[in-house]
Amino acid sequence: MNPEVLLSRIRVVLCRPSHPGNIGAVARAMKTMGLSNLYLVSPKQFPDPEADTRATGAVDLLQRAKVTNSLADALAGSTYAVALSARQRDLGPVIGQPRETVARLLAEAEFAEVALVFGNETVGLTNEEILHCQAAVTIPTNPEFSSLNLGSAVQVLCHECRMAAFSGKPPAAAQGVTPFISPAATQDEVEGLIGHMESVMTETGFFNPAQPGRLMPKLRRLFGRARLEQDEVNILRGILASTQVKTGHGRKG
Amino acid sequence: MNPEVLLSRIRVVLCRPSHPGNIGAVARAMKTMGLSNLYLVSPKQFPDPEADTRATGAVDLLQRAKVTNSLADALAGSTYAVALSARQRDLGPVIGQPRETVARLLAEAEFAEVALVFGNETVGLTNEEILHCQAAVTIPTNPEFSSLNLGSAVQVLCHECRMAAFSGKPPAAAQGVTPFISPAATQDEVEGLIGHMESVMTETGFFNPAQPGRLMPKLRRLFGRARLEQDEVNILRGILASTQVKTGHGRKG
Repeated sequence: MNPEVLLSRIRVVLCRPSHPGNIGAVARAMKTMGLSNLYLVSPKQFPDPEADTRATGAVDLLQRAKVTNSLADALAGSTYAVALSARQRDLGPVIGQPRETVARLLAEAEFAEVALVFGNETVGLTNEEILHCQAAVTIPTNPEFSSLNLGSAVQVLCHECRMAAFSGKPPAAAQGVTPFISPAATQDEVEGLIGHMESVMTETGFFNPAQPGRLMPKLRRLFGRARLEQDEVNILRGILASTQVKTGHGRKG
Repeated sequence: MNPEVLLSRIRVVLCRPSHPGNIGAVARAMKTMGLSNLYLVSPKQFPDPEADTRATGAVDLLQRAKVTNSLADALAGSTYAVALSARQRDLGPVIGQPRETVARLLAEAEFAEVALVFGNETVGLTNEEILHCQAAVTIPTNPEFSSLNLGSAVQVLCHECRMAAFSGKPPAAAQGVTPFISPAATQDEVEGLIGHMESVMTETGFFNPAQPGRLMPKLRRLFGRARLEQDEVNILRGILASTQVKTGHGRKG
């Protein structure tokens, strides 16, 4: 399915958010990752100018946000909900890792609307709210400092959603191939460079052909690894030639 | 290697950050994911009470943050730097996806310190700064609203680092990291080589500093791509020095 459509099927549900600024930050985080359906369960203060300020260009999400009185209402019409929870709750769904949980969420989104559910900034989700969710997820953090704020938590999970939705389509850049600016040097051009370098090193006394050691293999390894371009071979040979003119070993004609 | 140790080897470098609040948010984002080494290149305002406020429990990172005047200084002693960049730059490293790029970063961190480099909030990184980095990464976002703030961008990449550090990591070889014969050259060692090469080229007349063209960026790109070892830097500098002795520009003593 089209990744954008998949992402559009994910609701972000905030339960009892205290700070309107956080609601704005959540809207911005969602929109950067292509999510757009925000649900607010009993927000303390909404709408609010601070929410608009923090949302910057994502005010449209705030304007379309649905405010409900219960999590059940916010989940109506969806088929699968994942709760963000830092700790395992009694009877609650087993807490999963982000990558696996988000993959499952997107698999469900192929068929219907789904939801990511976040609790209040201070107290999190109630046990009852957790029980409305079919899965739970924790964001792995430093055990000595796990203070992710609401906007950051939403940012991380929305990022995971986008990565998962667009996976299976690795962009060309991901192949680790450096795009060439000039054509790749041919093997013989690289050989020409290595030979030129050997001449210069011999002339200057840096290299003694009678006692070669591992110098030439090391240079060969380096230039083999670098995947030289023609342009670069020409520059390096230009430098070498310029030192030869100075030392009197350059081409005379 | 122990994942916590790996994470402790990743520097976060902010180039010319404008808003102290963002520096605080970055410190918090880092600490939640177990990163701790913050470098600030010419921050507009630091230290600052707003940075402390936004850092909440991560003020210790601000107190230990290192402030430098150049990106080169911030990268000294590290061997591999990844720039966050939204667009491909002329001569810049190819822009990769977060997961692959972070895997490579951690593979490098097995051997030495590495860095994630972020630009100014408004203008990003300069082309010159990008050329100090061996790789670049973009965070995939909604093309119609890609307005990730600095703290969110750091949060997402630090999350990717933590996920990768604690996953069953593929060995360095699988990441396309060439096993080193000698230790990887540090950034300052590579800078020394490039500076040395510039001197030689200037002395021979191959390079005219008054009309530099694109010669230096091209050499920087080549050596950034090659991932030099200390041994190789020494060989190349030895060759350069040997030509200087011949031309009379070398060390006299």
